[in-house]
Amino acid sequence: MRAMLINTGTELLLGDVQDAHLAFIAGEIFQLGLRIVERRTVPDSDVIRRTLTELFPRCQILFVTGGLGPTTDDITREMVAKSLGLELRQDPQLLAWLQQRLQVRGIKWTSGIARQADVVAGAHVLPNENGSASGFYLKANINPRIPSPHVFVLPGPPRELQPMFRKFVLPILHSIIEVPLPVERRSYSIAAMGESLVEKAIGEKVLAIPGIELGYCALPGQVEVRIIGDPNAIQAADAIIRRELRLSIFSDNDEALEEVIVRLLKQRRQTLATAESCTGGLIANSITNVPGASEVFLAGYVTYANSSKTDILNVDPKLLEKYGAVSEAVARAMAEGGRARAGSTFALATTGTAGPTGGSLEKPVGTVYIGFAAPDATRVKKFFFPTDRETFKQLATQSALDLLRRKIIKK
Amino acid sequence: MRAMLINTGTELLLGDVQDAHLAFIAGEIFQLGLRIVERRTVPDSDVIRRTLTELFPRCQILFVTGGLGPTTDDITREMVAKSLGLELRQDPQLLAWLQQRLQVRGIKWTSGIARQADVVAGAHVLPNENGSASGFYLKANINPRIPSPHVFVLPGPPRELQPMFRKFVLPILHSIIEVPLPVERRSYSIAAMGESLVEKAIGEKVLAIPGIELGYCALPGQVEVRIIGDPNAIQAADAIIRRELRLSIFSDNDEALEEVIVRLLKQRRQTLATAESCTGGLIANSITNVPGASEVFLAGYVTYANSSKTDILNVDPKLLEKYGAVSEAVARAMAEGGRARAGSTFALATTGTAGPTGGSLEKPVGTVYIGFAAPDATRVKKFFFPTDRETFKQLATQSALDLLRRKIIKK
Repeated sequence: MRAMLINTGTELLLGDVQDAHLAFIAGEIFQLGLRIVERRTVPDSDVIRRTLTELFPRCQILFVTGGLGPTTDDITREMVAKSLGLELRQDPQLLAWLQQRLQVRGIKWTSGIARQADVVAGAHVLPNENGSASGFYLKANINPRIPSPHVFVLPGPPRELQPMFRKFVLPILHSIIEVPLPVERRSYSIAAMGESLVEKAIGEKVLAIPGIELGYCALPGQVEVRIIGDPNAIQAADAIIRRELRLSIFSDNDEALEEVIVRLLKQRRQTLATAESCTGGLIANSITNVPGASEVFLAGYVTYANSSKTDILNVDPKLLEKYGAVSEAVARAMAEGGRARAGSTFALATTGTAGPTGGSLEKPVGTVYIGFAAPDATRVKKFFFPTDRETFKQLATQSALDLLRRKIIKK
Repeated sequence: MRAMLINTGTELLLGDVQDAHLAFIAGEIFQLGLRIVERRTVPDSDVIRRTLTELFPRCQILFVTGGLGPTTDDITREMVAKSLGLELRQDPQLLAWLQQRLQVRGIKWTSGIARQADVVAGAHVLPNENGSASGFYLKANINPRIPSPHVFVLPGPPRELQPMFRKFVLPILHSIIEVPLPVERRSYSIAAMGESLVEKAIGEKVLAIPGIELGYCALPGQVEVRIIGDPNAIQAADAIIRRELRLSIFSDNDEALEEVIVRLLKQRRQTLATAESCTGGLIANSITNVPGASEVFLAGYVTYANSSKTDILNVDPKLLEKYGAVSEAVARAMAEGGRARAGSTFALATTGTAGPTGGSLEKPVGTVYIGFAAPDATRVKKFFFPTDRETFKQLATQSALDLLRRKIIKK
C-alpha cells in the first residue's frame, strides 16, 4: 500500500516553523510495513484542495496535517470537505466537549473555537487529548462518486498529533492494511565516532550481504546506522555491526544517550551530579528530560562565573589564576568539587570556550575539557569542536555523557 | 520566479531525522522576494534523478539538499550529473583541501572521502567551511540540450548548509533574480498568551485592511503573528498589532525570548542567576545558548534533590517539610536563596511537577510555581501546564523568562 503525506501550513513554506510530522508518522507506520513514498508541503490556500484531488488516485492512505485550529487561516476542514464533495456539520458532542475544556482551563470562548466542532459528513472523529483541535478519519471512497484513499486529517502541533496518532490512528491502520511484508528494520546509535569511520568499520562487510539496505545519518555527536532487509539478512548484518562497533553502540532501540544513562544508573542505584561551565546547563537539561531522572540526578551546578566555581565547587582560586578556567586542572577540580558537594556517585564537569568570541591562540574557540569524577578516580579528557555555539554545546554534552556511559558499563 | 526544493534522504522518509532546510531556506530567500512554492522529499535512489527531471521545467530556481557525504548512500552528485547529461570530474584543488582538512583534525583518510572531490562538469563549487562535503551551483541551461533551472546542490547537515547558504548562495541568488516585488513581511513574537486570544485581539481589525495576509503559528509558550502585504497595508496592520498587544510582544525581529533578555540585561548592566528544580537546567541552557551570555549570567543551580535546595539555596528544611517542595513558599525561598548565593541582580526559580508521575490531587502533574527575586521584591506566580514532560519544561521556561522580561522593561 502506498502512503503519502500532505503538510499544510504557510508557516512551513515561509520558514516560520519546522515540520516534525514526516519523521514521526514514518517511524510509526514502519512497524506496519508502510512507508511514506511522497511528501508535499503546501500553503494554507486553495492549493490544499488541488493537492488532495491530485493525490487521491495515487495512494491508498493519505495523511493531512495542520490547519485545524481556531484562527481564520485554518481551512483544512473546508478543503477536505470540498475535495470530497461532502458537507461540514457541527457536531453537538464535540461542541459540548470544547465548551467544557475551555471552562476547566479558564480560557475565554471565542467564535473561532466553535469552528473546531465542525466535522466532514460521515467522518470518524479522532479525539484530541492535548488540545482543542480534533482530527478525523474518512474511509476510502466515502463519497462513491469521488474515488479517494483512506484519509486521516490531523492537528498541526506535534504534541497533539503524536498521542492522537498512537492512540486512535494506529488501530485504524491496523484494520486497513494487509499482512506486512517480512521486512525488518534495525538501527544502532553510536556516540563519539565519525560517520566515515563507522562506514569504514562496517560498510563493505554489511553491503556484501544480499538484499540488505544500509544507511547512515550523522547528528551532532552521534551517528545512526540503519539496516533494512529480510530476517536472514538482518541477522547477518546485525552480527557484523555488533562485532565491529561493540561498545561504541549505545542503543539499538532509538533510546537517547541520556535515557541510556538514567536507565543504567537506576539499575545500579547510582547517582549523578553535573558541574557545567561551557555547556551552560545542557547536560542537566538532557538528563532531566528523561522521566524518572529525579531518582538518579541529585544536582547540577552551572558555574558560569569564576566566583561561582570557587563558591559552589570549591575550586581553588589559585588554580583558576595559574591555569585559567579552561584547563585540565580546573575541569578536574570542578568534577571532584561537584561530586563532593552533591554527595553523588559520579560527577561530570565541562569547561571550555563555546565561542563565537573568547578564544586564544593556546585555547582556541572549540576547546573543551571534560572532567569525570568516580569513586575510584577522576579523569579529564580534552576535545576540540571548532563549530557554532549550540553545536559545540551538543558535542561536548554527548562526549561527556558517553564517557560516563562507558565508565558505568565497565564496572 | 518560482523556487522549489528537493530534500533527498531515505532517513527523512523513514523518520530517522527531521528536515530543517525548508524552514531555513524559505526564511533566507524571502528577503529577495522569493518563496518556495513546492517542496518534495525523496529517498536516496534513482527517484532523485526522476524528480529532478520532472521539476526542471516547472521552476526557475531549484535547491537540492543532502546526499553529498562520504558513504555509499550519498548519490546526489551522480544523480544531478545524470539528469543533466554531464560528467563528474575529480577536482584536484578540492582533493588537496580535503586531505589537509582531515590531517589537521587527525581523522583517517577513507576511500569514500575522495568521492567528495568529484564535481559535475561546469559546476561552480560552494566551499564548506564546517564540513567535508562541498556544495555546487549549476547555472540555468548549463547543458544547452537539456533545459534546466538554476540548481543549487547543498550538504545535508544544517550546520554545514546554513553558513554555506548565507556566504555563497545568497550572493549568487542576488545576481540571478530580478527586482523583488514591493512586498514586506513582519512578524511579532508573543509570550504567555494563547493563539485564540491573540486572534481575538487583532484578527478582525487586521483583516479589514485590504491586501493584508495574516497568519498565526503556535509554539510552546509562544505565538508568532505574521503579516505580509504592500508597505501601506503593513504600516496599518503594524499600528493595530502594537496598539492591541503592546507589552505582550517581546520581539518583532525573530529574536528568541532568551536573546531579548540577555540584550536587556547587558544594556542595563544587570545580572541573573537561576535556581531550577522542575525545569532541570532548561532556563540556564536557553540563556547560555546566547553568545555573550557570560556577561550577564552568573550561575545556575539545578537543585533537583531537596537536600541540594537546602545546601545550595539555603531553603529552610522546615518549609520543605511543611509545604512540600512544590509550593509558593519554596519557590520564594529558592529565588531569594539563588539571588543571594550568586550575588546577582535577579534570580528565577522553578519548582513543579513535570510528570509523567509524581502528581497528587492537590498538586497534579503540570503544577509549577515560578519565583522571581529582584532587588525590591520577590514574587511567585503559579501556573498549570498539564502536558508532556518536555513541553511542560518549555512552557515553564518561557513563562519564567517572560516574567523577568516584563520586570526589566518596567524599570
